[in-house]
Amino acid sequence: MLSRRLWHSMPVNASRPLIYQGTKRVIASNNISTTDRFSPLAPAYAQNTIIQAPLIAAYSTVASSKTLTLSEQLAQGSRYALAKSITLVESSRSDHRAEAQQLLSYILKKQRDQPLTKPTFRIGLSGSPGVGKSTFIEAFGMYLLEQGHKVAVLAVDPSSSRTGGSILGDKTRMTELSRADDAYVRPSPSRGTLGGVARNTNEAILLCEAAGYDVTLVETVGVGQSETMVAEMVDMFVLLVGPGGGDELQGLKKGIVELSDLVIVNKADGKLADAARAVSMDYTSAIKFLQPPSPLWKTKVLRVSSRENTGIDKAWEAMKSYFDTMTSANKLTEKRGAQRKVWMWRQITSELVDRLNSDDKVKQHVAELESKVFDGKMTSGQAADSVVDVFLNKVKEDRI
Amino acid sequence: MLSRRLWHSMPVNASRPLIYQGTKRVIASNNISTTDRFSPLAPAYAQNTIIQAPLIAAYSTVASSKTLTLSEQLAQGSRYALAKSITLVESSRSDHRAEAQQLLSYILKKQRDQPLTKPTFRIGLSGSPGVGKSTFIEAFGMYLLEQGHKVAVLAVDPSSSRTGGSILGDKTRMTELSRADDAYVRPSPSRGTLGGVARNTNEAILLCEAAGYDVTLVETVGVGQSETMVAEMVDMFVLLVGPGGGDELQGLKKGIVELSDLVIVNKADGKLADAARAVSMDYTSAIKFLQPPSPLWKTKVLRVSSRENTGIDKAWEAMKSYFDTMTSANKLTEKRGAQRKVWMWRQITSELVDRLNSDDKVKQHVAELESKVFDGKMTSGQAADSVVDVFLNKVKEDRI
Repeated sequence: MLSRRLWHSMPVNASRPLIYQGTKRVIASNNISTTDRFSPLAPAYAQNTIIQAPLIAAYSTVASSKTLTLSEQLAQGSRYALAKSITLVESSRSDHRAEAQQLLSYILKKQRDQPLTKPTFRIGLSGSPGVGKSTFIEAFGMYLLEQGHKVAVLAVDPSSSRTGGSILGDKTRMTELSRADDAYVRPSPSRGTLGGVARNTNEAILLCEAAGYDVTLVETVGVGQSETMVAEMVDMFVLLVGPGGGDELQGLKKGIVELSDLVIVNKADGKLADAARAVSMDYTSAIKFLQPPSPLWKTKVLRVSSRENTGIDKAWEAMKSYFDTMTSANKLTEKRGAQRKVWMWRQITSELVDRLNSDDKVKQHVAELESKVFDGKMTSGQAADSVVDVFLNKVKEDRI
Repeated sequence: MLSRRLWHSMPVNASRPLIYQGTKRVIASNNISTTDRFSPLAPAYAQNTIIQAPLIAAYSTVASSKTLTLSEQLAQGSRYALAKSITLVESSRSDHRAEAQQLLSYILKKQRDQPLTKPTFRIGLSGSPGVGKSTFIEAFGMYLLEQGHKVAVLAVDPSSSRTGGSILGDKTRMTELSRADDAYVRPSPSRGTLGGVARNTNEAILLCEAAGYDVTLVETVGVGQSETMVAEMVDMFVLLVGPGGGDELQGLKKGIVELSDLVIVNKADGKLADAARAVSMDYTSAIKFLQPPSPLWKTKVLRVSSRENTGIDKAWEAMKSYFDTMTSANKLTEKRGAQRKVWMWRQITSELVDRLNSDDKVKQHVAELESKVFDGKMTSGQAADSVVDVFLNKVKEDRI
């Protein structure tokens, strides 16, 4: 089968020559160009050591021995090194961030020189609580292991900061998968902001791939904008729904069906088999009203039973078919590149807003204007002008 | 009828006491509090006169005689004053922006002291080209005039910067409405960025209302994020679709149906009547899969013929019913306040990104990093950190 062949033979960076350029060059090229490094902007970096630390690390000329060791252990597939690396990218401590940046730069460079031997596939998986997401991931993950894949499971859980604990972080949910040698189930990050979690997830995917996991499942619940964010960091977005009709459907957030490349109706077994068939038909007819996520691909609707282990193979066939369609058209490299650019801008604005909120005086000014804007005493544009001016003036004065 | 009575009797700011406090206090209260004005941040404002101009204007103690005159003419319903005011808020010239800010502050203050006598209703209207949007607005607008309303039509047209000209700005589209005394049809702004256009539209709505237009229609085509932006500046979002099935539906952007409080199937006449009925049923069944825009309101689907002038009254009844439902539950004031806060943050980030792009060196750095991120040489997070650092350092050095 073409699809099977493609999936097994396609290198990740097929278009790039496989040339290993030696350690010295590898390390040197971590940096921005020499011209950039000695630009008139450079001296300013040294003036604010705490905030600038990650920047200096990203630009530094030498990867530390710690980074080299960690990267080596990662390449050998060490779960310990993977856990440690993800903890580094999740940390908000500046020295950790500096280490994380160095590690990421080193890994990216290494992968450019020596592409991963197996293609990698990033699959987003969303579904409201109650649709049997854990059971599906457990069954699906075990199936992938049988097919010879290494599977990582990551969670984007924006609700964790509100509930004070992760609803997805419970490793015991997927007991069999968690114990398997070729699977890595990462509890969701405990850190606060949405931006933080998502940023970590983007980087955690890279780390999992560097550790040899060729299929990464990124799961999310339908909270806030998490689906959009996840859809923009994976190759394929899968929506898991239950056969219950009304209840689960009520929980669907704006646009989530439209983001989906595949809709899987779970629990299509026993007494629920008929209901699952009906829901499947409903989705099929609803989907014809929606713009397909890609001109090359029409959203499919499938039924599975995670409990009886039926339909899992069909679901994987559909995912592989998507992967092969996109890869053959050379769209996946393009999609990933475009996604990274989207994330870059998202992270720039989120970082700027974080800095803005990091100063108490600016924060207080923002709070006052927010309430004036809410009450209609100022237009949003007037308030925005004022906030930006106060923030940038504060940057000038205080070096925020 | 309750709905009719509510629509005609409800003041905009029902909860605020109607006390006129005299010109002196009106003008003085345009400003932020004296404490704010003499805060340690204040001296910094004076250092960058060009950028700070709007800020100073917004905070200044005296409304100029020019502003007072313009505001007076607006209150008398002068179309010339309205056109001039909207031009001011659309302008990127700092002196125009300063004038605009002063005018807006003055108007907002005046409306707090003396609420508008008629309730105002902001209706967003979206639909792909070809669904007969202009014909509908013409017919609908004329109907509203007959009902004694004053109608303003504004356009959000994010494509204008790309096509080099507005596709919505053609006043001749609505010949009858444009000529009517109680209607104001504003060609879409010629200015570039999405943020700019949208910001102007927010402020243009305020100006129209100050000039006595109690129903403002904000129209948009399905380009980019324009529907989301429009939905977040109006009380009710209406989607206009054609009876053609496939073609128009293909053009629907992600989530637009879910944003809609009302779907109107246009051209429900002659040979297309049956097709319109079928499309109407399809939408009705598609909608049950979507989360309703408000817990108080279920999205309705209606058929109209703008050509034969049928169904227009039913459409207006549905809109009034929405207005009354939201007003009775005191949700409209809340919605407008929340929308303004959303816009404030959107405008803060858009303004920061504009400032970031206003410096050639930072811009060049961004372009370099964008290409590295696209090529996978840097993570999006690394690039974002670097861009923010370079930008803020540039602010410190150069006072961007």
